[in-house]
Amino acid sequence: MRIAELSRQSGVSLPTIKYYVREGLLPPGELTSPNQAQYDDSHLRRLKLIRALLDVGGLSIAATRDVLASIDAPGKSLHDTLGKAQYATTPQRDYQADEQARATALQEVDELIGRRGWQIKPTSPARQLLAEAVSALHGLGQDDLLVSLDDYAEAAERIAAADVNAVLRRPDIDSMLEAVVVGTILGDTLLAALRRLAQENVSAHATPEVAANRARR
Amino acid sequence: MRIAELSRQSGVSLPTIKYYVREGLLPPGELTSPNQAQYDDSHLRRLKLIRALLDVGGLSIAATRDVLASIDAPGKSLHDTLGKAQYATTPQRDYQADEQARATALQEVDELIGRRGWQIKPTSPARQLLAEAVSALHGLGQDDLLVSLDDYAEAAERIAAADVNAVLRRPDIDSMLEAVVVGTILGDTLLAALRRLAQENVSAHATPEVAANRARR
Repeated sequence: MRIAELSRQSGVSLPTIKYYVREGLLPPGELTSPNQAQYDDSHLRRLKLIRALLDVGGLSIAATRDVLASIDAPGKSLHDTLGKAQYATTPQRDYQADEQARATALQEVDELIGRRGWQIKPTSPARQLLAEAVSALHGLGQDDLLVSLDDYAEAAERIAAADVNAVLRRPDIDSMLEAVVVGTILGDTLLAALRRLAQENVSAHATPEVAANRARR
Repeated sequence: MRIAELSRQSGVSLPTIKYYVREGLLPPGELTSPNQAQYDDSHLRRLKLIRALLDVGGLSIAATRDVLASIDAPGKSLHDTLGKAQYATTPQRDYQADEQARATALQEVDELIGRRGWQIKPTSPARQLLAEAVSALHGLGQDDLLVSLDDYAEAAERIAAADVNAVLRRPDIDSMLEAVVVGTILGDTLLAALRRLAQENVSAHATPEVAANRARR
């Protein structure tokens, strides 16, 4: 199909499609004449994926490019290939903490990993991300919020088991990779939404009691 | 303290502090002369919070402004006040789906809310956010990933119980509000990191078996 048809079917405007090609998010169409390119269903599929990562996953253009590149580059083994894609979905954050605070946070993270018996590579970007968040909570003096870390980890284990099962049910490596990327990124959004809904529900039941108890004192 | 001292203590550069004041993230200092303003510990605390929301929470300047405004505006009741802050922490996303797809996704979300027996206001932004993510997964043809939605919801309930408990343990409303905002936003980051660590661990154990089984076929 021509680019105009790709735009119609995807609902993405022509200038935006051209922008994604320039930014390396969407492979260029096949040139059939000096100023005519042909696109196919793989472009349509990729375009939908790009929009989902940007609009629902909240990723930047650069992060989306990295995630898509991980889909297109297989690794040495299945674990390695899926792992590369999953690493690419992990946001990089940088909380300005001093070296001491950073080391303390990383040690807490490694203790947690040891406690859970998790098998994690030292290069894991999620290990760094967790340390940034832990360090930020310490820096803000909100240490009491870290009491829930093990509850979070236990919940994460249940979710991860469901996630990996969903990936391994897929019939081939390409669709496994898509499940890793889409499931991890959109899964963050699902989880953020569900957590807030569950919080609203718990709060609706808990806060009137607390307010009443405090008033009585 | 003067702005130079605030910059030194917070590690945030002078132009950046001025930018936050202009953008309405940080209240201006108290003018002690026409070109001299005094800042105090509340500014230092707020500055740390701004950096945590931006650098670790991954929020935009606009989203950070909304979240901070919610801390400064109390509601009618405790549930209402905390609820406003929590609503402000919910990202708005927009997946371009047609009206039919949008309605179907929202119905699925409402069915889930009914199934869990959750008490949720129809205006909840998390309800909309969840519908966007569900609609994106349908649009991408990744319906099988939604099979885990109830597992996610159950995990979210456990996390939410821990979250609300942590908030209600706080001694006063100001520090409760800070726990809602910091706990919800940085909690997303904690959870994203822990989920990826747990996935890596599950995958390390599961993928070699799958690969071996497939090779044997």
